[in-house]
Amino acid sequence: MRTRITNILLTPGVEGESHIPFIPDAEIQIDVNRIVYAGKAEGAPAFAAEETIDGEACLCMPGLVNLHTHTPMTYLRSAGADLVLADWLHKAIFPMEKQWDEQLIRAATDLGCMEMLRFGTTAFNDMYFYTDVMAQVIEHNGMRAMLGHGIVDFDESCADMDEGVAMAEKWNHAADDRIRFSLAPHSEGATTPKLLAKVVQTAGLMGIPVHIHVSETDADVKGCWRRRGVTPPAYLEQLGLLDLPVIAAHCVWCNDRDIEILRKHKVTIAHNPISNLKLASGIAPIAKMLKAGCKVALGTDGVASNNNLNLWEEIKLMPLLQKGVTLDPTVVTPAQTLKTATLRGARALGYNDLGLLKPGYLADLILVNLHTPQMLPATDMESNLIYAVQGSDVRLTMVNGRVLYRDGQYTTLDADTLLRKAGEGAAEMRRRLDASRA
Amino acid sequence: MRTRITNILLTPGVEGESHIPFIPDAEIQIDVNRIVYAGKAEGAPAFAAEETIDGEACLCMPGLVNLHTHTPMTYLRSAGADLVLADWLHKAIFPMEKQWDEQLIRAATDLGCMEMLRFGTTAFNDMYFYTDVMAQVIEHNGMRAMLGHGIVDFDESCADMDEGVAMAEKWNHAADDRIRFSLAPHSEGATTPKLLAKVVQTAGLMGIPVHIHVSETDADVKGCWRRRGVTPPAYLEQLGLLDLPVIAAHCVWCNDRDIEILRKHKVTIAHNPISNLKLASGIAPIAKMLKAGCKVALGTDGVASNNNLNLWEEIKLMPLLQKGVTLDPTVVTPAQTLKTATLRGARALGYNDLGLLKPGYLADLILVNLHTPQMLPATDMESNLIYAVQGSDVRLTMVNGRVLYRDGQYTTLDADTLLRKAGEGAAEMRRRLDASRA
Repeated sequence: MRTRITNILLTPGVEGESHIPFIPDAEIQIDVNRIVYAGKAEGAPAFAAEETIDGEACLCMPGLVNLHTHTPMTYLRSAGADLVLADWLHKAIFPMEKQWDEQLIRAATDLGCMEMLRFGTTAFNDMYFYTDVMAQVIEHNGMRAMLGHGIVDFDESCADMDEGVAMAEKWNHAADDRIRFSLAPHSEGATTPKLLAKVVQTAGLMGIPVHIHVSETDADVKGCWRRRGVTPPAYLEQLGLLDLPVIAAHCVWCNDRDIEILRKHKVTIAHNPISNLKLASGIAPIAKMLKAGCKVALGTDGVASNNNLNLWEEIKLMPLLQKGVTLDPTVVTPAQTLKTATLRGARALGYNDLGLLKPGYLADLILVNLHTPQMLPATDMESNLIYAVQGSDVRLTMVNGRVLYRDGQYTTLDADTLLRKAGEGAAEMRRRLDASRA
Repeated sequence: MRTRITNILLTPGVEGESHIPFIPDAEIQIDVNRIVYAGKAEGAPAFAAEETIDGEACLCMPGLVNLHTHTPMTYLRSAGADLVLADWLHKAIFPMEKQWDEQLIRAATDLGCMEMLRFGTTAFNDMYFYTDVMAQVIEHNGMRAMLGHGIVDFDESCADMDEGVAMAEKWNHAADDRIRFSLAPHSEGATTPKLLAKVVQTAGLMGIPVHIHVSETDADVKGCWRRRGVTPPAYLEQLGLLDLPVIAAHCVWCNDRDIEILRKHKVTIAHNPISNLKLASGIAPIAKMLKAGCKVALGTDGVASNNNLNLWEEIKLMPLLQKGVTLDPTVVTPAQTLKTATLRGARALGYNDLGLLKPGYLADLILVNLHTPQMLPATDMESNLIYAVQGSDVRLTMVNGRVLYRDGQYTTLDADTLLRKAGEGAAEMRRRLDASRA
């Protein structure tokens, strides 16, 4: 398919960090799944498009990348509300997670993808179970995702390792390279040094990234000190894990030395500001991390601690929080913010041709409605796009050159069935949980 | 008009603070502008409705009350982005505000009302200029508002006082009591003791509330110490101002003694968490205030420091921030949160028949779409309503028994014209500013 999108205000994305570029009266030309032209309509090369999309009154920009989530947790939306973390995990989340089966995971994953597409997310990085099923779902629904089977190891059996490696071997680069895999050891606290050593060796051999929770809570850091005598970043550095490409989720409790370690090893920090507040984990020192030169990207985390998958909420909250906590309104610019939500995430997924709208890049993009009361006047489009916009202003979401969402309609998902199934599926999980306790 | 709304999940609102009640299979009956029945459809009294609204798959709840804003600032959306407060005010906001005229204020106010209606706000509390024009606009567009002419006084001339009083005398209780007025001295720092003494006397005689900014920044509090030898709440208490009904915007920098003063005098704190973060003012100790028994309501502040009028963002952020800052996920419940956004605001506007959906109460209500990916499964509706919902999920907004917004359409506002005018109006203000500087 050759597609042209006309009449747009174009944001090719953010390469530097000083400003977000905007090109009015622009168009984009897409050949199959790649952009062949993105710029002024006047002077654009001739292009025989099979489909032309009129983007009137819309901004066209790179799709959002949600760099840390657990997608099937849609069926656990709002579970364990307002509990302290240990209770939330052990009393609400873990018992429910024992009730999954393939069919439930399938529908819950699609529901999450439906929500992400509706709010302009085109790619996500996930750590969960049943990754074989999840990969099948994503192969069909057209999204882009990096999956990792969550590996825990308390007894040095490294039992989960095989599943994680097998899935990565089976699915990495599948579905026209829309699906990639990481190795995903859960965290320092939920793994042994033996397991992490295996991860380092295997991920290195396979050439795939590691996705891991790092320093999410003060207790995580204190536990690591007790167990390993150092902070989690220092521990992972010692093991050689940070010599691999790493996506480190959270990094809330990082001291200056941790920040230097993360910077030096080019770790991508997946910042989840809403989840960190909701679970009372704290506020990551993102302004300091950005200033130090760390790579920061954004994630929603699972919806049980959010409670949605609308990454625009993180986009607004990240700079706000940093301004409020540092008492400095100049920290974290709109350009830095948009970069965390697009290019930074794309790079962390291992793509060098994703996260910008320019020739040769993959056509993952969204159209954002500018003709709304909240986006007018458009005196300062940069600020409007970070602080005024709504996730619901997304009118079209394209992944790999294919329109997956447009004005309330999905092209690969049966929305009505998924919405109907959601209540039934969650109820079924609760029934099973009750039965298991009876 | 006699209106029935059927097929709804009913949230009559929050009177206590422990939970949000939900009544399935409910209906509401409205006679002109008052609710005559709200409860189970089964067993509802006979009611000859002229219009029946099918609320299928919707939650019906009280309309939101935005307790602190400056509505016409829509035309200054995103102005002065990321500046420190003094520069923001003196370099960006004040010079622009000299460019207003009646026609611009009219369109900018309607644009703000359009945005509020779309996101389910039915009433707001405003402090600005041209309140005569604003009142005319609101008389026509059907919203409910308390306006106050912003009074400053640096030279004891009390020159703004007359305008503030004249407008209150002209408009208070106008438009079927949809329009009310406060006296609105800007803040301790922008007024003299003489002016505030006049405000106390006049507001007391007129029986109207006082709307004032209190302890917004650390500098505000330090300035008050320097000028008056006490904190702003203690100063206002000394002047007798807190013996009146008072809406105190911000209260970010309040110590325990301040909190006790605010509690004792039943002051309503209008909390604006987004604006306070955006301008790097800080984070108000809301969890502590709620625990102490203070009355807390929510506001967006003006859009130049937000940058929209979607109060749902404050609804989600208020509890999140308090959890994150106190490191306690149990503080600030969904019920407390919804109450701040509805009943607390309604009471602060002086209504004893607003903010709940029950017989005898004014019919200010909204329908929220529950059939969306982000609201399913609905296992914990309380949490979904605070943390998962989108402002765009509002499908219908009714004020005083009249539908003002429904599924993208406005009944009293010319949306296309207002959207078109917004760019022109803001550009005109910038032209005038440039001309004044030439």
